[in-house]
Parts: sequence; structure tokens; C-alpha cells
Amino acid sequence: MTWPGDEELERDEDRWTAGSSPLDRAVFNTDGLLPAIIQQEGTREVLMLGWMDREALRRTLDEGRVTFWSRSRQEYWRKGDTSGHVQYVRSAALDCDADTLLVTVEQVGAACHTGTRTCFDGDQLQVTTGFLPTD
Amino acid sequence: MTWPGDEELERDEDRWTAGSSPLDRAVFNTDGLLPAIIQQEGTREVLMLGWMDREALRRTLDEGRVTFWSRSRQEYWRKGDTSGHVQYVRSAALDCDADTLLVTVEQVGAACHTGTRTCFDGDQLQVTTGFLPTD
Repeated sequence: MTWPGDEELERDEDRWTAGSSPLDRAVFNTDGLLPAIIQQEGTREVLMLGWMDREALRRTLDEGRVTFWSRSRQEYWRKGDTSGHVQYVRSAALDCDADTLLVTVEQVGAACHTGTRTCFDGDQLQVTTGFLPTD
Repeated sequence: MTWPGDEELERDEDRWTAGSSPLDRAVFNTDGLLPAIIQQEGTREVLMLGWMDREALRRTLDEGRVTFWSRSRQEYWRKGDTSGHVQYVRSAALDCDADTLLVTVEQVGAACHTGTRTCFDGDQLQVTTGFLPTD
């Protein structure tokens, strides 16, 4: 069931076929990139978000090592090549409109270049905690 | 410890102060948006990724209900208003360079407009499974 008023971008059904290559199904933005969420297998911690172009996605799927496109350095960046903090791929999935990737990994050491386990450890925001009707 | 060769964009330390508003710390892209990863509290499932502008971020933090900017409809989109599939905010954090948000939520029903629990349930990709040296 779909909720027409409660959706983001729709998958292009003409373009999408189950048997096609993920590299062809993936929808990249105007810069040729898509966001990739990196999640630790097992604990399910969200470690970081990086950006992949088509070639970085291909390498990630084919080599079993997470590879990003570094927007700041304008080069491929295979996670861990410098730091040793490798991300070994366990699984990968495109989302419903194929413009976001979720990769589960075995993370060696710290995922964040600041040395923390995840990139979300340092800046917890104050929120108005939502509530369920039963709260 | 930092790894100069193994990082993405750096946080702008001149701009960042611990006491400043998250709305001022957050770094939006050239379209005025940042990606927000939505994760179920407890089970830690990654449910979806949406986009927020400054106002959507403000509403999310202040109201305790996840609100996105819909790029396709060019309007604010408070998750669940149409479908009932509300996301009640439990916590939120900016990442190390303040350009990605992680929100943990209590998700009511299906997170995905296709009716599945998460937006990543439908298109699992074939991967070359990475390996640890000890595998």
C-alpha cells in the first residue's frame, strides 16, 4: 500500500527491473553521487555517512571494501587505506527510490577520523522528545 | 587522533562552538539541505533517509516529530500526517562535520511509503563479502 501524500521521490518503475545491475538502478544526484549509510553489522550502530559515485559503488560491491568519493579531495577514498580502519562489506541495499545506499560492515577500529567509534558520537542535540499516545 | 589522509570534510572549527545553536552549527548543502538518517530506537534498524532544511530541522528538534523537506513536492512533510506512520523523536546528533543528522525515533507502523518496515527492505544487492584477516 502506498500513501500518495506521504512519500519522497518515487522509484522510476520504467527504469527499474529486478534483474538489472545495481549500478544501473542506482540514482545519483546532479553531482553524480549518492549517500551511503555505513552500519556496523550485529550492533547496528550507524557509523558514518559517505558519498559514492558509480565507480565507488562498483568497487564497494566488487571488492568487499567500502570505497567513497571524497568531495573535499576529489578522489577515491578506500576507507582504512591510510588509517587501517577498514570497513569490510557484509551486505548492501538500495532504498525504495534507489538514491540511498545502506551498507552493513565489519568496522576495524574507529569509523570516525576524529578517533571516535562513530561520526555521531560528538554532538548530541537537545530535542523535545516525541511521545506516543500511550506515553 | 586524526588521520589526515583518511577523512571527509573537516568541521570548520572557527564556526563551531559547543554552546551554539544546532541550527547554526548544521552545514547545509548548496540546496540548503542535509541528509537525515532515521533509525529505530532499541532495534537500531535504519528506517530511511530524508532531507531537512534549516526549518525542517528546527521543527524536528522542537516538536519531537520528524519533519522533512520534500524535494519532489517542494514542501514540508511531517512524517505520518497523511499515513499515520509518525516518527516520534528520541534523540538527534550531528556528525563530525555537522553535515549529516542521525535521528533515533519511535516509528509507528511502516517507515516506507511502499508499506515495508524500512526503505531498505526491497533491494538487497549482491556483494563480494569483505573479510577480516582472521576469517
